[in-house]
Amino acid sequence: MLRQACTTLAFDTRGRGLLEITRPVVAFARDSGIGEGLLTLFVRHTSASLLVQENADPDVRGDLDRFFARLVPDGDPIFRHRDEGPDDMPGHIRAALTQVQLAIPVAAGRLVLGTWQGVYVWEHRRRAHRREVALHLLGG
Amino acid sequence: MLRQACTTLAFDTRGRGLLEITRPVVAFARDSGIGEGLLTLFVRHTSASLLVQENADPDVRGDLDRFFARLVPDGDPIFRHRDEGPDDMPGHIRAALTQVQLAIPVAAGRLVLGTWQGVYVWEHRRRAHRREVALHLLGG
Amino acid sequence: MLRQACTTLAFDTRGRGLLEITRPVVAFARDSGIGEGLLTLFVRHTSASLLVQENADPDVRGDLDRFFARLVPDGDPIFRHRDEGPDDMPGHIRAALTQVQLAIPVAAGRLVLGTWQGVYVWEHRRRAHRREVALHLLGG
Repeated sequence: MLRQACTTLAFDTRGRGLLEITRPVVAFARDSGIGEGLLTLFVRHTSASLLVQENADPDVRGDLDRFFARLVPDGDPIFRHRDEGPDDMPGHIRAALTQVQLAIPVAAGRLVLGTWQGVYVWEHRRRAHRREVALHLLGG
Repeated sequence: MLRQACTTLAFDTRGRGLLEITRPVVAFARDSGIGEGLLTLFVRHTSASLLVQENADPDVRGDLDRFFARLVPDGDPIFRHRDEGPDDMPGHIRAALTQVQLAIPVAAGRLVLGTWQGVYVWEHRRRAHRREVALHLLGG
Repeated sequence: MLRQACTTLAFDTRGRGLLEITRPVVAFARDSGIGEGLLTLFVRHTSASLLVQENADPDVRGDLDRFFARLVPDGDPIFRHRDEGPDDMPGHIRAALTQVQLAIPVAAGRLVLGTWQGVYVWEHRRRAHRREVALHLLGG
């Protein structure tokens, strides 16, 4: 019998960078009792992203952030939207270059993440923010 | 009882830039009568994207387009694929850098979009095009 | 009556570049007997992506790869994570700039892909790899 489970989780980021959320996401899927299905995550903000990335070497997260900071420079003079400071528009662009939603199948009671894959909220603003992630699981 | 609703919407873009489609997408979800579920959008083209972005300050859309036009220059000499002009291959790359599909959970009869989030078709070609977006909603 | 079908497909890439997987993906959907639903693909690796792109002119795939190789240079000195060579961290960044998952609605027994859209695994490492893609289909 197919059914659904939904929740919203809030995460306090510590400013720009990747925050791993694999553990609470896996716990939500496991506690639902759904053995096979589809988990969808959606971040309800325009300057944060959801990312599946390597969860072993922390240098990967640092390199990701350094690369994106160079690719989308804070305070770039081509930006007109500066209401909230020089990292405001770069946050929107970094979100557009990545994604605000993730779909991960569940099989045999587990997310089908690979061995080295973790789930992350990527904070694109310099300041810490509380970020809400909606979770939806459908299966049986 | 879980069920599905599907449709295809066509949007006439006005050339390169973001076209908001939040209203018809929200209307489709509401008219389905499905209170909890998962909405998926899929654009059936290779030089247009779907994007969730800020719907308040229009400068955000202009800045997004200006940034991407600089990142992926029209007529870049490294491109061999030029069948349809200098903005053809940049359209494909801009689509690869963003995405052709979006999944948005529905809870309490509403898309879980944040306060400042709107749904957009991003036209990457300079000329106006008719773009088809397939919508699929599953829930109960 | 809604139901699910799941599988994992393995693809042998030939090093960096796009490998079309449309045919086995379409076959999985067709063989499921599900006429209307949602297909989700998820690649279980951190240096490969899933992409919907033009399936006509092979120059598009070459241009995509050339563009990304210039955007994310192998051996870039800002990278600290170099455990597996100069194309290791670029693989992670290229995966972050694209995506590890795709959702494609199924309608009238067919994926809603546009005329020119194919489904690809994008190998970001220089060496050939075996890449696992989890498929999940839910519908009726």
